[in-house]
Amino acid sequence: MNQTLTEKIAVIGGGSWATALVKILCEQPHIQVRWWLRSAEDIAHIRTYHHNPSYLSDVYLSPKKVKVCDKIKEAIKGAQYVVLAIPAAFIEEPLRELSPELLKGKRIVSAIKGMVPHKNKLVTDWIEETYGIPLDDMCVIAGPCHAEEVALEKQSYLTIASTNLACSEDFSKLMTCRYVTANPLTDLYGVEYAAVMKNIVALACGITHGIGYGDNFQAVMVANAMQEIRRFVTAVDPRERDLSSSAYLGDLLVTAYSQFSRNRLFGNMIGRGYSVKAAQLEMKMIAEGYYAAKSIFTMNEKYQVSMPITEAVYRILYEGAAPAFVMEQLKKHLK
Amino acid sequence: MNQTLTEKIAVIGGGSWATALVKILCEQPHIQVRWWLRSAEDIAHIRTYHHNPSYLSDVYLSPKKVKVCDKIKEAIKGAQYVVLAIPAAFIEEPLRELSPELLKGKRIVSAIKGMVPHKNKLVTDWIEETYGIPLDDMCVIAGPCHAEEVALEKQSYLTIASTNLACSEDFSKLMTCRYVTANPLTDLYGVEYAAVMKNIVALACGITHGIGYGDNFQAVMVANAMQEIRRFVTAVDPRERDLSSSAYLGDLLVTAYSQFSRNRLFGNMIGRGYSVKAAQLEMKMIAEGYYAAKSIFTMNEKYQVSMPITEAVYRILYEGAAPAFVMEQLKKHLK
Repeated sequence: MNQTLTEKIAVIGGGSWATALVKILCEQPHIQVRWWLRSAEDIAHIRTYHHNPSYLSDVYLSPKKVKVCDKIKEAIKGAQYVVLAIPAAFIEEPLRELSPELLKGKRIVSAIKGMVPHKNKLVTDWIEETYGIPLDDMCVIAGPCHAEEVALEKQSYLTIASTNLACSEDFSKLMTCRYVTANPLTDLYGVEYAAVMKNIVALACGITHGIGYGDNFQAVMVANAMQEIRRFVTAVDPRERDLSSSAYLGDLLVTAYSQFSRNRLFGNMIGRGYSVKAAQLEMKMIAEGYYAAKSIFTMNEKYQVSMPITEAVYRILYEGAAPAFVMEQLKKHLK
Repeated sequence: MNQTLTEKIAVIGGGSWATALVKILCEQPHIQVRWWLRSAEDIAHIRTYHHNPSYLSDVYLSPKKVKVCDKIKEAIKGAQYVVLAIPAAFIEEPLRELSPELLKGKRIVSAIKGMVPHKNKLVTDWIEETYGIPLDDMCVIAGPCHAEEVALEKQSYLTIASTNLACSEDFSKLMTCRYVTANPLTDLYGVEYAAVMKNIVALACGITHGIGYGDNFQAVMVANAMQEIRRFVTAVDPRERDLSSSAYLGDLLVTAYSQFSRNRLFGNMIGRGYSVKAAQLEMKMIAEGYYAAKSIFTMNEKYQVSMPITEAVYRILYEGAAPAFVMEQLKKHLK
């Protein structure tokens, strides 16, 4: 009816979380989504059948609301928001086509729960540095939210964090719909680091479960992990924050306990004796915790915070330490 | 070898948690357990076959270590510790045989995660009032620990809380063995209330799951529940405590997420449409959360802390409110 109300939002990435975000955004009557995916086959399929063949394939993607784009430049053209939903490990290459000029004036939303590898940087910091976008024009989307349950329209909550409250409030509105409640928060770094670290914890839970530890042990590990996250986040960005709120604890729980968690699944395979390489080959999706363990471990060489769980995961994944032995040692650090 | 080293410990109760505690205590070379159970059939079976026929029936109970007693007075005779492991709802009747004189000088250990019904009192407060045992001679055993995993000798952690550090340290030593690490803590009330309230949360998780809510919602509910527990415990007994430690958060997680949780199972049946009566008939074991919801709700009439989750469970269980409707309302209070 009122064309001027239409807001264009670019979504970059073709995985399950990107697909879920497209679905949520399509619930807003005034939004048009420009969706860039890497795979030409997936693009062709979506254009013809209006379903993503690779992820959440039951989700209907209305062609009236979603325009699928081959070119990333085409997707971001005229978009007020650019939502990044690519695994952190692969973010650099597709964004190479973009420049500070092309992104100027747009708000960047990171739905990525990982750090840019080798650089050991949060995605928001990397974007600021590389494209000159001010932090105040960025926000991050944090859970607790599994894409699979968004597809099923199960009641979910999101946290939209930004250093700029207006930015997080604006985007929270766009992400709130019948089955999603999005809440703004101003703790950008805290939310982003906690989101990164939860994947390491889920991996650790998977490893111990794969070895044969039970629910009792996992509960203790998750409680200890919350304390480990608090120590690290406080060292990196000291401020008052309630870590028992959904953005931190909830996000950790949904990842550590859910059957949908790929980090947990990846860890489970490691615990059962798969090599890292074999577990990666077996899984179609990327387990962000694999990269996060290295980034956080490396960052912590500076902060020197006590992080027995992150260290245990690092030793297993990067130094070839035997999972059962490492967890036997870890046991002594938990209480 | 050295008979004088033998320490007698009475365990009162015949359920799965009592059986697990007997098993753990038997790991200590110098301990003799005097075990009182209500059921004459179970007593006869244990005497003959050295297994509890009703709970954790795979656990071997060595007659050299465990003396099964018909009479509660016989069980506590000469015991330095009396471990109570009866559902709070049924504690008054069997203890009626005891008197302040009979219990004098003994340490009382409560393994009960509930409140004495109608009195709305913690078990330790009730024992102090009824039998004149000073709080400093009492401790409580908290999780995170499912009896079923103790039976399987899976690595578990316990928290032994007392107002008297020496008391909690002494008993922690008795509860630490190859597969259990027990840690002392001095926050008796905090641990005891958190242990009571976690059962209400598990019940709420079961209800929402039974209705059809998913993992995303449960993660948000558990995070909100931690805040609800903090508000209540701080109102009742204000002091510094780290609620993300195993004794509180860990205990909540193992109950809210485990397949073994009877509170969760009970809630699940309610969520799927069973009446309270029908769900209770179907379950052999008592869901402590049922009584806890009433006690905490009633206590909170005095403290007036915001407790939307406890209130939701109370309305469903005691006021016949429709679970789906109540949870729809609760959604608005969570974030």
